[in-house]
Amino acid sequence: MENKVLIFGHKNPDTDSICSSMVHETLNRKIGWEAKAVRLGKINKETQYVLDYLKIEAPEFIEKIEEGQEVILVDHNEFNQSVEGIEKATIRMVTDHHKIANFETFEPLYFTAKPYGCTATILYEEFKQYGFSIEKKEAILMASAIISDTLLLKSPTTTRFDEQALYELEKIAEIDMKEYGLAMLKAGTDLNDFSVKELINIDSKEFDKEGTKFEIAQVNTVSIEDVLKREEQLKEVINKTIEEKGLSLFVLAITDILNSNSEIIALGSKTEVIKTAFGKELVDNKAFLEGVVSRKKQLLPNIDKNI
Amino acid sequence: MENKVLIFGHKNPDTDSICSSMVHETLNRKIGWEAKAVRLGKINKETQYVLDYLKIEAPEFIEKIEEGQEVILVDHNEFNQSVEGIEKATIRMVTDHHKIANFETFEPLYFTAKPYGCTATILYEEFKQYGFSIEKKEAILMASAIISDTLLLKSPTTTRFDEQALYELEKIAEIDMKEYGLAMLKAGTDLNDFSVKELINIDSKEFDKEGTKFEIAQVNTVSIEDVLKREEQLKEVINKTIEEKGLSLFVLAITDILNSNSEIIALGSKTEVIKTAFGKELVDNKAFLEGVVSRKKQLLPNIDKNI
Repeated sequence: MENKVLIFGHKNPDTDSICSSMVHETLNRKIGWEAKAVRLGKINKETQYVLDYLKIEAPEFIEKIEEGQEVILVDHNEFNQSVEGIEKATIRMVTDHHKIANFETFEPLYFTAKPYGCTATILYEEFKQYGFSIEKKEAILMASAIISDTLLLKSPTTTRFDEQALYELEKIAEIDMKEYGLAMLKAGTDLNDFSVKELINIDSKEFDKEGTKFEIAQVNTVSIEDVLKREEQLKEVINKTIEEKGLSLFVLAITDILNSNSEIIALGSKTEVIKTAFGKELVDNKAFLEGVVSRKKQLLPNIDKNI
Repeated sequence: MENKVLIFGHKNPDTDSICSSMVHETLNRKIGWEAKAVRLGKINKETQYVLDYLKIEAPEFIEKIEEGQEVILVDHNEFNQSVEGIEKATIRMVTDHHKIANFETFEPLYFTAKPYGCTATILYEEFKQYGFSIEKKEAILMASAIISDTLLLKSPTTTRFDEQALYELEKIAEIDMKEYGLAMLKAGTDLNDFSVKELINIDSKEFDKEGTKFEIAQVNTVSIEDVLKREEQLKEVINKTIEEKGLSLFVLAITDILNSNSEIIALGSKTEVIKTAFGKELVDNKAFLEGVVSRKKQLLPNIDKNI
């Protein structure tokens, strides 16, 4: 059993989950608490771009934790998105920007959630509240997370706090965030050497609404058409996932990050939800959702309310 | 339907729930958000002492809320301790110092929990973080809440943050907190004109552990003996409550605030839990628990783990 407190983001980690875990480790060190960033899954290509840029290693991978392990959750709170064994962990702290569900603790803890576009924006504010200076490395990690979660401040999840943080972090990092950010986002859309199975797992989250299980996966691209070349294989592997996990609905959002739209593929016994949620009829289990780029702000709340 | 955001503490409000709601209203006003403190139950005698001291009115009583009502929860998060209709409210913010359970939201929100002795200590820190000055009235409201929840810093729930806050608030309030606090606590122990039914409801909370429902009530006193004069009537009304609410266990803690001990009365089908939880055999459904004064830190976690 690991003695140190472990810090980690959600399964299928995205750039915010990885970068915010690493920044959280630094924040803890400054406060005087020993804690170690780890990760619950493979580093995606977008995040790898950040790590390569900074010439740093990814946090260590862990698969499960032992009973009583002390942990800090970042960028998630729902147990079904967390590590195996989370139910019996001692959760000391949560820093998150999602809705709260499927979460409970035995004891009081530190829980900081804010309805921002990115976890890293909350961490940026914590550094400021404590009066800690931010090093260049942490500035780039936080900026990368904000750029990733807000698609360079274009997603509807973006708040003025994310804008403010990115503006300040750009000054510390001394790099052109637009140029860096586009290169980073583009690195993440290179889907060619992913199998279809890997593709639907790049950024996927399971939800549970009173026993009805559903999953929303998202891939970013600069060409929806390009991803849809593998439409039939994608449907096949999604149907297999539905069967294996006992899901009522699986939605894959293929998001065009340049034009801020998404094409979705929806399969499962509850696909009629899409009509009620977005006012769009599925054709061939697909629908084009104009202006939809955010799972958290657009896909999830609408599906969650109607399923 | 109330248009303003409503701020409230838990049912059977204690001094922290009432005072922190009122202070939260002030904090919101300073930030520029309109919100109004209300209460979910009768003002207890301890809290009445505070209001009388400050010559201010209690917040308005509400019984339930409409669907979609925007709310701010203080000093609780569990829906079963909250207002009727909370499941369909829009929860904008939570400020709390309890464990998190039976809580979920549809959307991201502000959630600030810290493992402190009192909600008001968290609010004190928020005032400082925003750089807002604290008026005398708010200082006394916050200090009263801290004194109440920590029994003048003697409860094991007390943290150095509560101590620090009370120390600073004493300077702003310009009153002797020990003298004021003892008078306030004593006012709360005057149980004579409570019926036994009212007595077990003064400060009572229901919990739900995977379908097993239990309730822990607490009364503060300067004489346990005095309260036990009504032992038989208390047992009768507790048994009736168990039947009505379908509880597996009801624990009434009669807490001696001067000597920091509690006598408990435990009834229900699961009273064997007390043995495992505290290593004390119930005699006549009673047990004396030395040094036990805190529901949150001592009674609840031990019962919760063993039920």
